[in-house]
Amino acid sequence: MKLSARHLAAAIAALVFPLTGMAQAPAPATWIWYPGDFEIWLSNEMQVKRNERDALFMPFWRFYSHQPQVNFTRHVDLAEPETISLQVEGKYSVVVDGKFVQGDQRHVLVPAGKHGINVQVYNAATPPAIYVQGKTIRSDGHWTVGPKPFYKPLNGVPVQAASWHFDTPAAPPSRYRLATREIGAARIQRGAHSLLVDFGQETIGFVKLKQVKGRGNVTLYYGESLEEALATETGETLDRLAIAHDGDMVLPNSRAMRYVNIRFDDDVDIGDVALLYEYLPQVRRGSFKSSDAALNRIWDVSLRTLELNTREFFLDGIKRDHWIWSGDAVQTYLMNYYAFFDSDTVKRTTWALRGADPVDMHINTILDYSLYWFIGIDDYYRYTGDAAFVQSIYPRMVTLMDFVLGRRNSNGMLEGMPGDWVFVDWAPMPTDGELAVIQLLLARSLDAMADSATLVKDVERAAKYRALAADLKQKIMAAFWDPERQAFIHRRKDGKPDTLVTRHPNMFALMFGYLDAAQAEAVKRNVLMNDQVQKITTPYMRFYELAALAESGRQDYVTGQVRDYWGGMLNDGATCFWEQYDPAQKAPERYAMYGKAFGMSLCHAWGASPLYLFGRYYLGVRPVQPGYATYVVEPRLGCLEWIEGKVPTPHGDIDVAASTTEIRVRAHGGQGTLRFASTVAPRCREGVIRTASTGHYEMTLEPGRDYVVAYAAASSR
Amino acid sequence: MKLSARHLAAAIAALVFPLTGMAQAPAPATWIWYPGDFEIWLSNEMQVKRNERDALFMPFWRFYSHQPQVNFTRHVDLAEPETISLQVEGKYSVVVDGKFVQGDQRHVLVPAGKHGINVQVYNAATPPAIYVQGKTIRSDGHWTVGPKPFYKPLNGVPVQAASWHFDTPAAPPSRYRLATREIGAARIQRGAHSLLVDFGQETIGFVKLKQVKGRGNVTLYYGESLEEALATETGETLDRLAIAHDGDMVLPNSRAMRYVNIRFDDDVDIGDVALLYEYLPQVRRGSFKSSDAALNRIWDVSLRTLELNTREFFLDGIKRDHWIWSGDAVQTYLMNYYAFFDSDTVKRTTWALRGADPVDMHINTILDYSLYWFIGIDDYYRYTGDAAFVQSIYPRMVTLMDFVLGRRNSNGMLEGMPGDWVFVDWAPMPTDGELAVIQLLLARSLDAMADSATLVKDVERAAKYRALAADLKQKIMAAFWDPERQAFIHRRKDGKPDTLVTRHPNMFALMFGYLDAAQAEAVKRNVLMNDQVQKITTPYMRFYELAALAESGRQDYVTGQVRDYWGGMLNDGATCFWEQYDPAQKAPERYAMYGKAFGMSLCHAWGASPLYLFGRYYLGVRPVQPGYATYVVEPRLGCLEWIEGKVPTPHGDIDVAASTTEIRVRAHGGQGTLRFASTVAPRCREGVIRTASTGHYEMTLEPGRDYVVAYAAASSR
Repeated sequence: MKLSARHLAAAIAALVFPLTGMAQAPAPATWIWYPGDFEIWLSNEMQVKRNERDALFMPFWRFYSHQPQVNFTRHVDLAEPETISLQVEGKYSVVVDGKFVQGDQRHVLVPAGKHGINVQVYNAATPPAIYVQGKTIRSDGHWTVGPKPFYKPLNGVPVQAASWHFDTPAAPPSRYRLATREIGAARIQRGAHSLLVDFGQETIGFVKLKQVKGRGNVTLYYGESLEEALATETGETLDRLAIAHDGDMVLPNSRAMRYVNIRFDDDVDIGDVALLYEYLPQVRRGSFKSSDAALNRIWDVSLRTLELNTREFFLDGIKRDHWIWSGDAVQTYLMNYYAFFDSDTVKRTTWALRGADPVDMHINTILDYSLYWFIGIDDYYRYTGDAAFVQSIYPRMVTLMDFVLGRRNSNGMLEGMPGDWVFVDWAPMPTDGELAVIQLLLARSLDAMADSATLVKDVERAAKYRALAADLKQKIMAAFWDPERQAFIHRRKDGKPDTLVTRHPNMFALMFGYLDAAQAEAVKRNVLMNDQVQKITTPYMRFYELAALAESGRQDYVTGQVRDYWGGMLNDGATCFWEQYDPAQKAPERYAMYGKAFGMSLCHAWGASPLYLFGRYYLGVRPVQPGYATYVVEPRLGCLEWIEGKVPTPHGDIDVAASTTEIRVRAHGGQGTLRFASTVAPRCREGVIRTASTGHYEMTLEPGRDYVVAYAAASSR
Repeated sequence: MKLSARHLAAAIAALVFPLTGMAQAPAPATWIWYPGDFEIWLSNEMQVKRNERDALFMPFWRFYSHQPQVNFTRHVDLAEPETISLQVEGKYSVVVDGKFVQGDQRHVLVPAGKHGINVQVYNAATPPAIYVQGKTIRSDGHWTVGPKPFYKPLNGVPVQAASWHFDTPAAPPSRYRLATREIGAARIQRGAHSLLVDFGQETIGFVKLKQVKGRGNVTLYYGESLEEALATETGETLDRLAIAHDGDMVLPNSRAMRYVNIRFDDDVDIGDVALLYEYLPQVRRGSFKSSDAALNRIWDVSLRTLELNTREFFLDGIKRDHWIWSGDAVQTYLMNYYAFFDSDTVKRTTWALRGADPVDMHINTILDYSLYWFIGIDDYYRYTGDAAFVQSIYPRMVTLMDFVLGRRNSNGMLEGMPGDWVFVDWAPMPTDGELAVIQLLLARSLDAMADSATLVKDVERAAKYRALAADLKQKIMAAFWDPERQAFIHRRKDGKPDTLVTRHPNMFALMFGYLDAAQAEAVKRNVLMNDQVQKITTPYMRFYELAALAESGRQDYVTGQVRDYWGGMLNDGATCFWEQYDPAQKAPERYAMYGKAFGMSLCHAWGASPLYLFGRYYLGVRPVQPGYATYVVEPRLGCLEWIEGKVPTPHGDIDVAASTTEIRVRAHGGQGTLRFASTVAPRCREGVIRTASTGHYEMTLEPGRDYVVAYAAASSR
């Protein structure tokens, strides 16, 4: 996990020259560990922080452990002797050329010439990690890691050490904390023995009680809504504390809230209340503005929603779970590519979801969530081009896929087995038997495995996954495509087709590109645009439904949907997007969920999908070859007068502006292609416009250059 | 892991009535955890304590982790409500009937009627463990454990919680320490700035410096021999400390020694030196005495050798490694059954060696050591009859065997692969290619797997292992049995037989009962008693060689060998038996090993094999059906005038005394059979003597009764 370009360069050099020493100036030292260990440990620690009032509420899925012992290895060829200094998290020994170093273990002299250095570290409590600082020998991507000194993994590919941004000896990974900064309350309403604090919008952090005096008990009732803060018997989170000394006090738990209702004993007095806002520092790279102020506000609140949920990992929601869910995460990744382009958080989340081996349970216990995990890696590689990460996580892709494939039924299809949760969506629909949507996700996962296997040169497995995917796609069409209805049916149970048609398999098949043009058109007409088919009500599946519609050019329809659904939440007072929204429900009933009065999350990552929709389908920017080596810009107005914004890429931001009369692009990255439609002949500044088909044009975009295409009253909606 | 009969009874009840509540009075509460977790964690902690002078020296094999999250489950049916109190190692939540308990998590009211209780615990640093105390609900063998609440393992057998003897809330597993007691020095020789302390015999513990005064540095050089303690530059272990205050000081590290050479600065004074002897409390149940005082001393020193190495786990040696080695352990188990009958330490050691899943490396990295591990479990069950343990560890037997079987070559045989260490013995012999001894160990391991699978009712795998074993035995005879030489050859390399004959495959085949009578006789004559075949020089393989000879009735020969080899060590000053002994070498050269002047261990568990030889082959007691349900007593004098002693069993000790004129037995356990030979007609008191064949007699032994058989000048050597 590399934050800086310098670290990345060092890691790539290490892949190329793993045994021959450094080919260039040494990278700065940073804390390193076995890939995934930090993320597994941190996610465990984070996920056991969920409180439901006075009870701790732990995840019910498998927790894995970091490796308690790791051997860090480095081969060097030194022009002159060099003393390295070591900082280590754990008990350790240093071995040079197979011999244990005696005496001072913190400063070790490495003689000139070729040498193998090995640091063996044991740490049960937190991930074994080292920080090595020398003139040329530094802990960085050059080090390999394994379970024993100079271990050669069976597939022959040495495992490179992982790192993040722990660049100083005094800040080891085990001390990782999010950043905080103090913010004041927007309003404080004082009662006799109470304070009702409003921070003005959804936020998260440690409440700070200032100028506390007296002795007695204080209880804080948190609320994402005012109603929840006032509902002292049914709100989701609270903290109790006893005041034992005067002064300022910071609460020990970070909580999500907009409001906090503070009740205290007679003998207690509290002067003021603030919040240590807790956050992951981010650069807001993506942007979007349009001629519709309501949509602009929706985009801004979407960004805030994603920002609040982008923390140690991508969370589902900041109030309730503080957990990591694979189905939520795979969507969040996509939104992130159009907002922060924070690849580190994608990688951390991917490691955390997967854990270690052996696998005996689906990710989050949910069958579909194991499958989304593979797709998330495929997406990651497409957006970032980060082959080193795929190489690093590939062994755990193989073992999870082994687990998945081992659970197919005699038809070669997946259905829920005892202990599996088949989620698909919060909607009344059958989830037993062979679901079409599950088989489609499996086919897509097998495609992802084949791509990754090809990338890491695992030729044999690549062929195997490719063949499995092809075979499964045939089976899916045979079993679920209803030629009469021209749509996918929902499932087959005990060998018999169930004639129910749902949106889910149809929109996935469309999005995955598994349909020919006629089938795609039929699905759009017969299912997606057909009000007779059961509607999707969760923002979770709305994400795919609207993406599928936009994918097939229905931005006009999407604009209206976004305006209604997300605009509705804003009209109902949202400062952040919700887990679920039904305009027919009023407060406080609409805050209920899971049988609890305030069970619903008012700040849920999957509510931020307009970031993805506007970035990918309006500004129209998407990578074609991995990491934007080639990409497409295809702006669509979706009935708006004008749109403009930035889309981040690994190489810089692509600026796009489009109106009914012109398109402006500042290109970045590899080679781009601008695509647009126009009913009148367009003119360009820079570049050459080619006619793709009647009324459709293309133009090649070179990095770092500005392009303007002008036309009058074009048909680019 | 149960210490008391009460705990064992509770565990058995839990196996029988896992879901129907308790069928008898509740067992006392004890700390419980996921099977293997405590042992994995403790063995990691112990094995990173090896020092080689100033350097820490860690094992080079895979370390596993305990499970960071464990869910403890109990189903109850209460006549009346009951409040349970909880002590937990880790963060936790309590769930009753699927609902999180709010408020006080340490005292939970369980209503009358049927309920499911679940305690979810997270602990990265030490194994999740709970202690629950209620009127009838207590943490004991009734609880099941899993990775999620109410988890149903795929094979359908719930995993029972494990425990040991942590019976009070204040003494949780993570605080486990061996016992200590202060012992004085035998002699202290004072120098100007030094003390040379002799504890009179090999021992281990924390040196205590008494009445320390002054300020300055002190260095302690430990020696198993006087020469080592004086060799300040080349001794294996030392401690350095700075005196900062007056009074008594206890060194932080437990060290093996007979001598300690203490050197200190001018300004330091030390009044006296003692040792906090560190030990696992044991009952010395087995005993042996004979007409030969030298052999008696050998037995006593063997017991001391085993006792010192029986600690957190069965160690190889107390000075150097402090590690756990599977090949050493499997022998130690057998010695233990004739000494302490400490089944807890066998179980702890078995868990620790195995670790967790997935397996990607042999135990201790050694191919043969993975195989011995299976045999150790088979032996354990035979001696103890503890089916619950086999049930508990069976899943990890399956995964290790999967790993082993996955590494067979195209002939279905095992040979060393890259990263494997093929040890066999410290002897100059080829270890590449297909070794006969390795295939024999695999066949024996497959037999063990088949027996265990049968025991846990895994019918399918039992048949598979049985078939694999039968097939392999045929292949072994075809590939390695040389009809001309009437012996096993050592190996086959690249498809070609190597004509070298070594003792190793021949003695294992004999001991495993894989030979018919003619083959056995041939092996004994052509190999074991043949001085032309390369001799075995390590006590490690002497164990099997002498056992094989005794197995075939050559106690007369064994007596002489023991007298020479072990008696030789005693004559050379041993107070504990050594890792290796060559009478031709003199001190200090004989202390050298592994290229180090004092590398050899002078207190090595495998040196204690006379315990096993005398118990099993002289007193002649051995279980036939598991746990001594049936057993044999077949005393053999081995040229001694008389022998007498006790052999421990799960049911009590069996007393045996034999001389040239009579045999006395006090029976215990299940049904025994006394076997003996006599040239004159024997007379008995109690019981009935049957003639087995000419000159051979048998008698049935009933529990708790005394038997005396008298005859004159019998042939029972």
